[in-house]
Amino acid sequence: MNILVINAGSSSLKFQLYDMTDESVLAKGKVERIGMESAILSYEPAGKPEVREVREILEHTTAIRKVLDILVHKEFGVLKSASEIQAVGHRVVHGGESFSSSVLIGDEVKREIRRLFDLAPLHNPAHMLGIQAVEANMPDIPQAVVFDTAFHQTMPPFAYLYPIPMVLYKKHKIRRYGFHGTSHAYVSERAAAFLGKPLKELKLVTCHIGNGASCAAVMEGRSVDTSMGLTPLEGLMMGTRSGDIDPAIVPFAMSKEDLTLAEVNSMLNKHSGLLAISGLSSDMREITEAREAGDRNAALAFDMYEYRLRKFIGSYAAAMNGIDAIVFTAGVGENSAALRAAVCRNLSFLGVKLDDAANEARSSEERAITTPDSPVASLVIPTNEELVIARDTHQLILNRDHVV
Amino acid sequence: MNILVINAGSSSLKFQLYDMTDESVLAKGKVERIGMESAILSYEPAGKPEVREVREILEHTTAIRKVLDILVHKEFGVLKSASEIQAVGHRVVHGGESFSSSVLIGDEVKREIRRLFDLAPLHNPAHMLGIQAVEANMPDIPQAVVFDTAFHQTMPPFAYLYPIPMVLYKKHKIRRYGFHGTSHAYVSERAAAFLGKPLKELKLVTCHIGNGASCAAVMEGRSVDTSMGLTPLEGLMMGTRSGDIDPAIVPFAMSKEDLTLAEVNSMLNKHSGLLAISGLSSDMREITEAREAGDRNAALAFDMYEYRLRKFIGSYAAAMNGIDAIVFTAGVGENSAALRAAVCRNLSFLGVKLDDAANEARSSEERAITTPDSPVASLVIPTNEELVIARDTHQLILNRDHVV
Repeated sequence: MNILVINAGSSSLKFQLYDMTDESVLAKGKVERIGMESAILSYEPAGKPEVREVREILEHTTAIRKVLDILVHKEFGVLKSASEIQAVGHRVVHGGESFSSSVLIGDEVKREIRRLFDLAPLHNPAHMLGIQAVEANMPDIPQAVVFDTAFHQTMPPFAYLYPIPMVLYKKHKIRRYGFHGTSHAYVSERAAAFLGKPLKELKLVTCHIGNGASCAAVMEGRSVDTSMGLTPLEGLMMGTRSGDIDPAIVPFAMSKEDLTLAEVNSMLNKHSGLLAISGLSSDMREITEAREAGDRNAALAFDMYEYRLRKFIGSYAAAMNGIDAIVFTAGVGENSAALRAAVCRNLSFLGVKLDDAANEARSSEERAITTPDSPVASLVIPTNEELVIARDTHQLILNRDHVV
Repeated sequence: MNILVINAGSSSLKFQLYDMTDESVLAKGKVERIGMESAILSYEPAGKPEVREVREILEHTTAIRKVLDILVHKEFGVLKSASEIQAVGHRVVHGGESFSSSVLIGDEVKREIRRLFDLAPLHNPAHMLGIQAVEANMPDIPQAVVFDTAFHQTMPPFAYLYPIPMVLYKKHKIRRYGFHGTSHAYVSERAAAFLGKPLKELKLVTCHIGNGASCAAVMEGRSVDTSMGLTPLEGLMMGTRSGDIDPAIVPFAMSKEDLTLAEVNSMLNKHSGLLAISGLSSDMREITEAREAGDRNAALAFDMYEYRLRKFIGSYAAAMNGIDAIVFTAGVGENSAALRAAVCRNLSFLGVKLDDAANEARSSEERAITTPDSPVASLVIPTNEELVIARDTHQLILNRDHVV
């Protein structure tokens, strides 16, 4: 079965085509600047040269048509006909409290995703455009949705509720949802396989550290807590997001600087984090380089970022009364040996024994960065959210066909 | 030397009179409802019956005069003349970045406390009323101020800065200050004495859990982190305060419920915490009783409160790369065996071995609630902020006289 995985943003669309017989990627790519005359289609077919086209793409339906066109292109294509695609799987950021697992799309699912526009105004409407664009181009194809929030729906109420008036939960659904769930779930499973132990017997802290960043406490395979909350702003310090601050700073800064609600949101989401402290960049590679070159603001940004991450790991060890392994994943987690080293060296009290050589080795493989006798393991596990979306979609189709 | 300790609020004034030859309390009491016709003076002289008077007290100068009057009262008094009071020590909540220790009051100190009105609008103006009321009644008496923030001025920048635009720190001094410093300092010293180890060699997490609540990471006798921040809203869940939430909830709730800045501040400070979740009370005693009687909302409130406290302890263990002891103090910390038990039982991974009998014993003594072989000790240490204020004031007077 061939499955097309789509991650639709408001002006972009990433895609990956899987052959599920061996889970190989036949092609992947993205469309950027949708809505512009000079939109960009980047395309990487397996075993063939990459393609890059600049052309007018004014909306998502056209973007999907261009993707299908190039997938069956005589020269660059990997399929003979679009009908060789048997299903489409979409990433959807917010599933609210309605979805604790992936589902096939139907009218009720679409209605529910729309009801959640309010909680994810930057994401869910864009995902809906992607779903509709597929419907317009391939009217009969089954589609599935995989939610970033679903894995965290196992959190207990004492972890997902905020200590604020309950009316805000009952009326506006203000609670902790958590994000990056697909990634936390994937690396948890891989970590158990790597350690050769049943996931059911493990206490893991998974650290998805990319431009956005979140930790999760994963106990017996279930997410019991996570650092992102109602929105992806809460928790860790990120590239441009503040993460946790005194909530009183919001009204204080609004009053002092005469900010609107939109402006304070923008400040905390787009002009904070590494960028604000370093005055330099939101990119951990650049921060690390500047720090090594002696830049004091970059060093401060690095220290704050590391310190806040380390405290979250400690707090989740307390949440689960212990910890078997720490998992680092996503761009920064997979690539910043400096960050991982600083975190692990300061967690020796937990039983983390860093293996410096293993940590510094350049590798894209799953690996331990602690010594074999380390009571608590630290692992680097490259994440693969697209593969999870393809697998979930595949499984939903198989189950449906089995039931029928 | 007799020292009068004052804690002035906007409509209240607590006092305690110390004889520093043996640090005994000669009398203590409070004036409530200042500004009303029916203000209340409560007075407890050592070894004599308590006194309670209801009368008009319209401002702080009158309140101080009434306190002095009763301290030298023929029947209820403990002094012959007010001139037997050699110094006054005041609690001041916010010392900003200017004060890292207690100081004698002079014009520059008063100017600085006024400059900090902005950061502590509910507290510092009231403290200034108390200082001026003493000046009006005892023009020549030396006065000292002891700041709630001072002990935390040893935090490193990576712990006290927020990952938000640096202009907010430079222009508006938005940073973590921390509060309850007098209490955290006092119980840290007592914990070291109790453990028979030099404070310089200890890593402590001190938990000041009263109606307001904060934790501190105290390493080698210095505060290196604390849970309250710019304001006393941040950190732990409290009686009526939320503590940490997704900062995005503030603009979200303001928009959904059409709240002003004052209203959202009030919601998070006065209508959140235990009160909001239980729908019952902000008082941990009532919550615990209701929980034991089967009230599910009270049980949820208790669980959230305990969980959030426990996670902070874990995060500070990670901040210091280990921990020697956990100290519980203040109203809830000293009295809620149920809370301490829940926290300690779930920290066995750190090496906390609870001694159930010791934990449940009714006592107002300093004591361990862990077994003698527990690798990490948990202690109950009754706090005594008034004594610290008296001692600091005493020492400042001695130093001044020594210099002269």
